Amino acid sequence: MNSSTTNALPFEDTVGAWVPHGRFTVAPVSEGPLSGLTFAAKDLFDVAGHRTGAGNPTWLDTHAPASAHSALVAQLLGAGATLHGKTITDELAYSIHGDNMHYGAPLNTRAPDRVTGGSSSGSAAAAAAGLVDFALGTDTGGSTRVPGSYCGLWSLRTTHGLLSTEGVVPLSPLFDTMTWLAADADVFERVGQTLLNDSNEPVWRDAVVLTDACAQAEPLFAPLIDRVIDTLSTQFSLPVSYAPSSDTELEIWRQTYITVSAYDAWQTHKDWITSARPTFAEAIQGRWQAAANISVEAVEQARSLETKLKAQVRNVLGVNRIAILPSASSPAIERGADAATVDAIRASTFRITSVAGLAGLPQVNIPFIAQNGLPAGVSLLGPAGSDLALIRLAVAVGKKLNALGCGHG
Amino acid sequence: MNSSTTNALPFEDTVGAWVPHGRFTVAPVSEGPLSGLTFAAKDLFDVAGHRTGAGNPTWLDTHAPASAHSALVAQLLGAGATLHGKTITDELAYSIHGDNMHYGAPLNTRAPDRVTGGSSSGSAAAAAAGLVDFALGTDTGGSTRVPGSYCGLWSLRTTHGLLSTEGVVPLSPLFDTMTWLAADADVFERVGQTLLNDSNEPVWRDAVVLTDACAQAEPLFAPLIDRVIDTLSTQFSLPVSYAPSSDTELEIWRQTYITVSAYDAWQTHKDWITSARPTFAEAIQGRWQAAANISVEAVEQARSLETKLKAQVRNVLGVNRIAILPSASSPAIERGADAATVDAIRASTFRITSVAGLAGLPQVNIPFIAQNGLPAGVSLLGPAGSDLALIRLAVAVGKKLNALGCGHG
Repeated sequence: MNSSTTNALPFEDTVGAWVPHGRFTVAPVSEGPLSGLTFAAKDLFDVAGHRTGAGNPTWLDTHAPASAHSALVAQLLGAGATLHGKTITDELAYSIHGDNMHYGAPLNTRAPDRVTGGSSSGSAAAAAAGLVDFALGTDTGGSTRVPGSYCGLWSLRTTHGLLSTEGVVPLSPLFDTMTWLAADADVFERVGQTLLNDSNEPVWRDAVVLTDACAQAEPLFAPLIDRVIDTLSTQFSLPVSYAPSSDTELEIWRQTYITVSAYDAWQTHKDWITSARPTFAEAIQGRWQAAANISVEAVEQARSLETKLKAQVRNVLGVNRIAILPSASSPAIERGADAATVDAIRASTFRITSVAGLAGLPQVNIPFIAQNGLPAGVSLLGPAGSDLALIRLAVAVGKKLNALGCGHG
Repeated sequence: MNSSTTNALPFEDTVGAWVPHGRFTVAPVSEGPLSGLTFAAKDLFDVAGHRTGAGNPTWLDTHAPASAHSALVAQLLGAGATLHGKTITDELAYSIHGDNMHYGAPLNTRAPDRVTGGSSSGSAAAAAAGLVDFALGTDTGGSTRVPGSYCGLWSLRTTHGLLSTEGVVPLSPLFDTMTWLAADADVFERVGQTLLNDSNEPVWRDAVVLTDACAQAEPLFAPLIDRVIDTLSTQFSLPVSYAPSSDTELEIWRQTYITVSAYDAWQTHKDWITSARPTFAEAIQGRWQAAANISVEAVEQARSLETKLKAQVRNVLGVNRIAILPSASSPAIERGADAATVDAIRASTFRITSVAGLAGLPQVNIPFIAQNGLPAGVSLLGPAGSDLALIRLAVAVGKKLNALGCGHG
């Protein structure tokens, strides 16, 4: 691996985004389409010569330094980008909150009294603060879409399976996707052009607003969604209609996602958890305990539903329709919010994010500032493999609307 | 995309492996670990400037030239390898036989009166004939493991999700994996070292022979499996035990795989099939019709079983155990075999290959010549993400046993 690692970051981590063992720089391997850009990687991504921490000190202690870069890190270094170290993730990526008990809660510079969201919390904080141009994350249940919405960043979930998971600590392989976040729309798209292929770019036919997902979000999302609808129909000539994701309540979607992913995560990590006996934050420990207790019957029933729901939303989209939905159920949560509040918001957020999750589909967050001054995102959801076309449409829409990071904010 | 394409192959396609629209060469982008090596890509992989055919002329006619390389093609060109065009695949990869009605059955040079196996038929033929050093394939239900076994090649299935599917025509995304085949063991491993990461390499604890899978294979596999067992225990000090994959009959595994993958494939391709109305070979057309008729109830039941079977085989393997099984149920099938014979062998082969398929696990084929003079492979199956370690162990075992492509054959 031809990489030169220095011992430090060339800037101060003013937002508490980096893990202590992740304060280093790796030069690009060659000139390329991302020359001049810098990025950070969520501490699930292997970087040769460095240990991967996955948000938990016991994981860090029980794993040797990586002997090779993860596939995406290698690809980005090969495309000319400079890596500035590794950022905080919620423990084993098993939270969307963004407050790691071991490494802290990175600062949300757009809303300093609020969390960044997780699990790509450090990546979001680093990109939002402008310390790097973009940052690698992962999204299993919402772990990039949610911090993107909370921090006012361009972010996404990619089509499941499309980007390599090679050299990345898994959470639930059935749902894990590789992602990135960026403050600037053009940088966000440029990374997409490097990682994604546009050979199967659809000609968009129309759009559908997912009414059930919209109903889960706080009212301040409504005018933002209306602006996106208006732009799609008037500027892009896409007819917009309104329909639910399916004939099934989104609470059932959420339960289905939670059951299947928790069971899968437990299968993935139970050997390490039961042998290494790591300490987890209470909420995350509770999730592992619940995961360990899911019966085979319960997960079987949930997988049946998953199949049905996946087919339904894919049928809604076909090959050239997009869907519009809020990226989260609320703006960023206040730091120090009580557990019950966090749990309630987590539930309504998962009712929204589980649509793309269960369907394995790509979703792009367009970052706005809501009427209360806080970041809030609107998402476009697209057919499998349409990721780059979806990014391009989202950025074009964002530019018409002066969304964050479009050169006007 | 910095690629220079010439108009022709620099050699004669003596084995009928290339598609007519795939006779071109793309130079490497830079020097790298694969400099000096040549490869071909199954015609599911996008190559910039060329149309992807997916084994069906109507697919070719209804798709524009790719504007970018698929992720793996780009990675290999970046690692110094030279691409020599695109090879025949069974239609939409929906067969493991290797006889495409539109493009023919490539020649199996080790057994000229027999098929190569499919769906990576052209890739197998090209690698076996020595026309390229290695060839990209895909494996959904066995489409690389089977031609590897039939043609005497090193081949594999990778952990599901590990390698990027970017720019590759899907069959069933729930099971599709990206793969390669090579005649030479060192080349096979070198490609793995380029595409895969060894940071999580297990220390192998022991091995288990999957007795139910062995029972599906013709008796000529038994002495080959015994040689692998003997080498693992005496040369690698790995205790070897015997157990079935699970407490469920492999016929149930096969039905579960077929039901879930067929439903998924139909969801993936029904829009194109119903609008473009392509002509398929009778067996493949029958498969699409059956796929279209799978009820939601049937696939729900199958996904329940899939979950249970996946957990069972992952429990058997844990994090550092390997399993031993035949790579196929028979040597390569005679050209012109009747449909009933092909179907029966297909069924017993799927009873074997569905173990790794349903579990999403990596499997490496070690190529041997059986007592009747025909190629027949023995596989090692490993835990999720152990791909490179599994390749290294398989190659080390193969070298002890003078397997094909180990410098002694």
